[in-house]
Amino acid sequence: MNLRIRGCVLWQRGAATPFAALVVAALFLAGCASAPFTDPLPSWNEGATKAAIIKLVQDTTRPGSPDFVPASERIATFDNDGTLWCEHPVYVEVLFTRDRILAGAAQNPAWRTQMPFKALIDNDQAEIAKLSGTDYFAMLAATHAGYTSAEVRKAAADWLAVTRHPRFNRLYTELVYQPMLEVLAYFRANGYKTFIVSGGTPEFIRSFAEKAYGIPPEQVIGTSFMASYTFDNNVALVRSDARVLLIDDGPGKAVAIDHYVGRVPIASFGNSDGDIAMLATATNSPASRERTRFAAFVWHTDAAREYAYDRDTSVGRLNQGLDLAPRLGWTLIDMKRDWKVVFPFEK
Amino acid sequence: MNLRIRGCVLWQRGAATPFAALVVAALFLAGCASAPFTDPLPSWNEGATKAAIIKLVQDTTRPGSPDFVPASERIATFDNDGTLWCEHPVYVEVLFTRDRILAGAAQNPAWRTQMPFKALIDNDQAEIAKLSGTDYFAMLAATHAGYTSAEVRKAAADWLAVTRHPRFNRLYTELVYQPMLEVLAYFRANGYKTFIVSGGTPEFIRSFAEKAYGIPPEQVIGTSFMASYTFDNNVALVRSDARVLLIDDGPGKAVAIDHYVGRVPIASFGNSDGDIAMLATATNSPASRERTRFAAFVWHTDAAREYAYDRDTSVGRLNQGLDLAPRLGWTLIDMKRDWKVVFPFEK
Repeated sequence: MNLRIRGCVLWQRGAATPFAALVVAALFLAGCASAPFTDPLPSWNEGATKAAIIKLVQDTTRPGSPDFVPASERIATFDNDGTLWCEHPVYVEVLFTRDRILAGAAQNPAWRTQMPFKALIDNDQAEIAKLSGTDYFAMLAATHAGYTSAEVRKAAADWLAVTRHPRFNRLYTELVYQPMLEVLAYFRANGYKTFIVSGGTPEFIRSFAEKAYGIPPEQVIGTSFMASYTFDNNVALVRSDARVLLIDDGPGKAVAIDHYVGRVPIASFGNSDGDIAMLATATNSPASRERTRFAAFVWHTDAAREYAYDRDTSVGRLNQGLDLAPRLGWTLIDMKRDWKVVFPFEK
Repeated sequence: MNLRIRGCVLWQRGAATPFAALVVAALFLAGCASAPFTDPLPSWNEGATKAAIIKLVQDTTRPGSPDFVPASERIATFDNDGTLWCEHPVYVEVLFTRDRILAGAAQNPAWRTQMPFKALIDNDQAEIAKLSGTDYFAMLAATHAGYTSAEVRKAAADWLAVTRHPRFNRLYTELVYQPMLEVLAYFRANGYKTFIVSGGTPEFIRSFAEKAYGIPPEQVIGTSFMASYTFDNNVALVRSDARVLLIDDGPGKAVAIDHYVGRVPIASFGNSDGDIAMLATATNSPASRERTRFAAFVWHTDAAREYAYDRDTSVGRLNQGLDLAPRLGWTLIDMKRDWKVVFPFEK
């Protein structure tokens, strides 16, 4: 589409000849001609999972299909941690937040005596092991309060540019799942808009999602804090504070999809019990009855290439979801069985 | 772009011949060739305002321009009431809300003795005249609480299909501004994403914005309420409650753009003091310094064709904004002077 837009602009401005437009047309024809021979999901092993994804996209985009979805209604929602990139042994944003707290300890002397910050500052492993979700959101809030979104994004981008995964010794942005990158691209090539709906914060995810996944900031939804606007010395600023706006996990993901997207997704992908409501929103909303819908869990079954975990982990636990999946017709993406490669660098 | 996509799909499925693709290519060439002779803003009188809008779009989309903006960063934000459609003599959603309260009075006996509902039910004009913004948000909350977004959208669509403006005797969706429809289309034809950032609710605006403006639900931001998720009998539902999530007016519009869009808009259009923070976000954010930005008020100067109001109205008051505009370089779109027609039916 860019080519065509670019072609039009060149022609309009008189900088190009009809020949340039013919070149564009030829490229266009070449693209059409080669399309049928291209596997949209080359990193997926042949099997029921790959076939189900391809069938969904074909059924929803083929004119005349009973499941045809107008382009404007093609929405697919994706969890981030454990669905699009590696979340073990610890959620990446938790590590970033820990480093923000350590870096900010000097400026926040109260943290030295205050849990959960004290546990991190003292590197008290026994206390760290006890930290709850509430503790995590308190840490997130503390590290966002007072900052603009641009400041947090810059800090996250700087951190992601140098911090490596303890096992793979790779940047975290290298530990995205190649098969899921292909799913994102395949959906988008067929007119779908792809959204991230994550328990992480938009500021953190927006710092890398456009480059890593091709997902623009306005399609990133996450756990968020309230903010305030100031206009001083002719500068407009919005700074977060510590009040929670939305905890985008569990039922919060269903609320978020309704609120931010305003449509029932055709497809939802997650990997943990925190994604159940998000998957159910795609398949079991009242509007879901109108036509086919799809939901899938990325099931972490590959200890050799990544990690194997489901019911017995505190990071990305998939327990109730494993029982619900067969009952609600959700697909289990068996990482070990379904994926030829896990990470892009394996190719 | 659709043509090209459709062309590709036909070719892939073996239903078309190379001839079909050549037809598509010919149409494409014809489109390019005719483009330079098309005025993108035919309902605008020639003058500084029209020239400024065209210059902005050209400067931000011409490759090599110092103000060139990559396609993914082309964001334009628009207020709705008074900027994209008629808001006088009363905001449309206020009238819808009043009718919802009257229709719901039997089911909500408490409303009969409780302000602000009592004033509406009794049609007490003296009390109605005294209703404040807080009263309005209380009415909005009460008419959303307990409903799904789909239910509110359906009610709004049904109401908009039959309710007419008291002066023009037209459906409200006929009272959109033709010149602004052209601005929306012109921006989008040049790769911009257009967002609504409104004091109204997303449910109400989403009920008509895609058809009336070409703006999809996921690009509609508004005053919003918290919601809760339930999953009973295999049905996933999200119902609003009466707690405010965001009042998307005044400083709330700057917070909303930061939160929902996650980028600084290249252009913002409003019409009242409630849009000042939204316009300042476009022109006076730290990121605004990187390249040209644009902000404009629709200035209601045409009592004959629409309404004339600015400093002395309680609906869409433009007072501080009139003083700020010259100081911050914002454009005043003088409806009487700049617009050839106001509404589509005048064409």
